[in-house]
Amino acid sequence: MRIARIAHPQGVAFVAVHGDEAAEIAEHPFGTPTFTGRKWPLADVRLLAPILPTKIIGVGRNYADHAAELGNEVPSEPLLFFKPNTSVIGPNVEIKIPAVAERVDFEGELAVIIGQPCREVPKAKAMGVVMGYTIANDVTARDLQKKDVQFTRAKGFDTFCPMGPFIETEFDPSDVRVVTEVDGEVKQDGRTSSMVHDIPSLIEYVSGIMTLLPGDVVLTGTPAGVGPLTAGQTVSVTVDGLGTLTNPVANR
Amino acid sequence: MRIARIAHPQGVAFVAVHGDEAAEIAEHPFGTPTFTGRKWPLADVRLLAPILPTKIIGVGRNYADHAAELGNEVPSEPLLFFKPNTSVIGPNVEIKIPAVAERVDFEGELAVIIGQPCREVPKAKAMGVVMGYTIANDVTARDLQKKDVQFTRAKGFDTFCPMGPFIETEFDPSDVRVVTEVDGEVKQDGRTSSMVHDIPSLIEYVSGIMTLLPGDVVLTGTPAGVGPLTAGQTVSVTVDGLGTLTNPVANR
Repeated sequence: MRIARIAHPQGVAFVAVHGDEAAEIAEHPFGTPTFTGRKWPLADVRLLAPILPTKIIGVGRNYADHAAELGNEVPSEPLLFFKPNTSVIGPNVEIKIPAVAERVDFEGELAVIIGQPCREVPKAKAMGVVMGYTIANDVTARDLQKKDVQFTRAKGFDTFCPMGPFIETEFDPSDVRVVTEVDGEVKQDGRTSSMVHDIPSLIEYVSGIMTLLPGDVVLTGTPAGVGPLTAGQTVSVTVDGLGTLTNPVANR
Repeated sequence: MRIARIAHPQGVAFVAVHGDEAAEIAEHPFGTPTFTGRKWPLADVRLLAPILPTKIIGVGRNYADHAAELGNEVPSEPLLFFKPNTSVIGPNVEIKIPAVAERVDFEGELAVIIGQPCREVPKAKAMGVVMGYTIANDVTARDLQKKDVQFTRAKGFDTFCPMGPFIETEFDPSDVRVVTEVDGEVKQDGRTSSMVHDIPSLIEYVSGIMTLLPGDVVLTGTPAGVGPLTAGQTVSVTVDGLGTLTNPVANR
């Protein structure tokens, strides 16, 4: 199922997308969704970020070629950080570059959406707690990341976590292409099969530390090719089977 | 007003505490609360963490004597980190030490509770976005903090953010005593007037990065004297005017 969250003429709703139609889901999209019967043509609604997570857990240096391009070693255990949910924006919403940052980079990523409350999930059962997958852009102020050491500020600004356009629940994430383009020029072109720590390993590791809740997001890391964004550009992240997440860039 | 969140025989509620009585607040405690008329004797209810925040922003090395005891310099800008809301527990709930951590420390702190959505709040207006104050224990796996560099895991385990017992809305936080005791022995004894970055400065800095939401928590840092906890001990943090937050310690 292809799940989205939309702004429609009467409000906001979770929907299932079938072709050009959005069918309203009752209450929430976890478990086996039920439908209200209301439908809208996709052209008449606006796609929002498909989920508002209670937490977003990022994984640094999870593609060896990206770790190398920044002069870092690949960590033996996943290197975790948080992005606040106030950084989330949907498709086509502006990424806002704050005046305090000198270099703000795109990082195209596959995002895992957790489907149920869980903790200490063993690797062999990890895929069972996944609701689906979407695309994210882990926007990062590279100069502040280096200066602060802690990633909190560099990755935490409002608008620094574009997500969407929808969550695909039937999807094999093990070997798909992740491409990031800026103004149509390909900057990143990786495959999820190159992850240092694969998705089941990440879920086992993270859930061994903290309880995961429905809607929580695990960002799986970015391949090589990260680079700066400037106001006026447009950045798109495409994951085969998940569509394209596009955001314009502006100054804050 | 003294605001708490309680488990009562019929469910969970925000309450105002007057003497030995808890008066139920309708809906939520932000703005000017209204009351349902239901009341319970405090002895008949259990105090929960007084708020479930959408985010918890911690500030590292915000007391010079604590920075020095860990061999760190005082940062010129606040050093920020996040704790996930899954780490929150209430008074008298066990702090659980995970097997992977070799040394888990207490860090007694004054916690600021944000009262309204806000961003880019200037220092001069910062106290106006505060709903009140409570006590927190920023429990930290010291060995993992050093090993990981990023604080995410070390400060993010379930149960690593005791908070409570209540939120005091009428409170001057500028110069109060913060005392942490383990099994009755005083380990930390500081005053909030020793903060490197005071509360208005922290709110200005954090809200300049990310939007703050009602219930969000800013942990203001810990004074000198941090030390390890082991299973079987009891840790208490007392802030003058805010009561005492007590938690037993157990192995996970």
